[in-house]
Amino acid sequence: MPGELLLLSNSTNHGEAPLAHARAALAEFYAGREVLFVPYAMADHEGYAAAIGAAFAAAGLRLRSVHTVADPAAALGAADAVWVGGGNSFRLLRALQRHDLIAAIRAAVSRGARYGGASAGTNMACPTLRTTNDMPIVEPTGFETLGFVPFQINPHYVDADPASRHMGETRERRIEEFLEENEVPVLGLREGAWLRVSGRTVTLCGRTARLFRRGDEPTEHGPGADLSFLTDAGSVFDVDER
Amino acid sequence: MPGELLLLSNSTNHGEAPLAHARAALAEFYAGREVLFVPYAMADHEGYAAAIGAAFAAAGLRLRSVHTVADPAAALGAADAVWVGGGNSFRLLRALQRHDLIAAIRAAVSRGARYGGASAGTNMACPTLRTTNDMPIVEPTGFETLGFVPFQINPHYVDADPASRHMGETRERRIEEFLEENEVPVLGLREGAWLRVSGRTVTLCGRTARLFRRGDEPTEHGPGADLSFLTDAGSVFDVDER
Repeated sequence: MPGELLLLSNSTNHGEAPLAHARAALAEFYAGREVLFVPYAMADHEGYAAAIGAAFAAAGLRLRSVHTVADPAAALGAADAVWVGGGNSFRLLRALQRHDLIAAIRAAVSRGARYGGASAGTNMACPTLRTTNDMPIVEPTGFETLGFVPFQINPHYVDADPASRHMGETRERRIEEFLEENEVPVLGLREGAWLRVSGRTVTLCGRTARLFRRGDEPTEHGPGADLSFLTDAGSVFDVDER
Repeated sequence: MPGELLLLSNSTNHGEAPLAHARAALAEFYAGREVLFVPYAMADHEGYAAAIGAAFAAAGLRLRSVHTVADPAAALGAADAVWVGGGNSFRLLRALQRHDLIAAIRAAVSRGARYGGASAGTNMACPTLRTTNDMPIVEPTGFETLGFVPFQINPHYVDADPASRHMGETRERRIEEFLEENEVPVLGLREGAWLRVSGRTVTLCGRTARLFRRGDEPTEHGPGADLSFLTDAGSVFDVDER
């Protein structure tokens, strides 16, 4: 179970500037470190790096984007702070695979580098891509992700709208489908919420989350909740052999 | 370009019985044929086959589910009518791959078997899974699907709610992301809409659809619209080499 993580549900709260809702948490988490930014979840790396660079500057932090360096794998392997931005998680994972960045980021974090992300960047910290909300616009070579935590996170978790007449699956129904096929718990992080992970200690911050476990009723958790029980090794068992 | 297809956005309209909105179209499409049902998008094959069997009976049609036959691939290869039900499209595609049903269904349709589906069943008729709305709860061996039409369909297409404060991507934004990576057109079929495909003739029925093409403004199409231009060979070109 590696190191120090900051995993946001979303980059931007409605009506706010990017990352404004988590500015103090980012400032504390990355204090004194230069942050290497992974922009591959978006198509426009340049524009994305500028926007996130400004958001980090507002938190008093310096950010450099890996799309501007000659050897992204070497740079990430040597980094002591990484931020993986949101966007499309299939596009992001395929880029990590193509540029050989999975092993580089794992090596950095196991050495003590701090890993943070929002949305797709949070999906990457889980064992697999299987609880993303994104459209599978490109095909990665597999769904395995960084695996820094042993449970799944569903970012942008949203409760069903009782007034809706739309017949597509609710988010809760989608997570139930996941639990029909897998035994890994899923934490639905509502927008504005994030996790601070330090070794085996997991703390919910900012807003509420809904936890789904196979065979149990979902449970609600509020800001400040200690969710460290999710890192118990026994909680991880992937069925996937139906 | 194979045969005769009936591709529904959704199985069930809000407040209606399953398939009630398309009952007359189903009765005409499958008249005189026994329909072989593919239930693998859902976890409960037995319950699903019973529900869809009742919906087909209401249209005067007989339905048999492939989960009850000894050799699903042989049965599908010999079928003269197939219905692929909705649910989770990743689970469905993985089942088609594991049971060797892709080649069997293609062979049947190229012989003149009628293919119909709703939601995940409609996703299967496209070149790839890349415009599904579903959560990737299991990992198929690849995203290639049946390819009965040379364009992509997004089932359950839904317009953005201007009052929403949720910051997850709108459906339109997700399809724009797809077009950042691919050149295949995407037809967003609103709930209640379906396509009737006969060779190279494509007709929109029931409700409206929104068509997305790379570099163009989206266009709106109403019931009765002739969308046969989407089967022009020149419209299909997958970039995916970014």
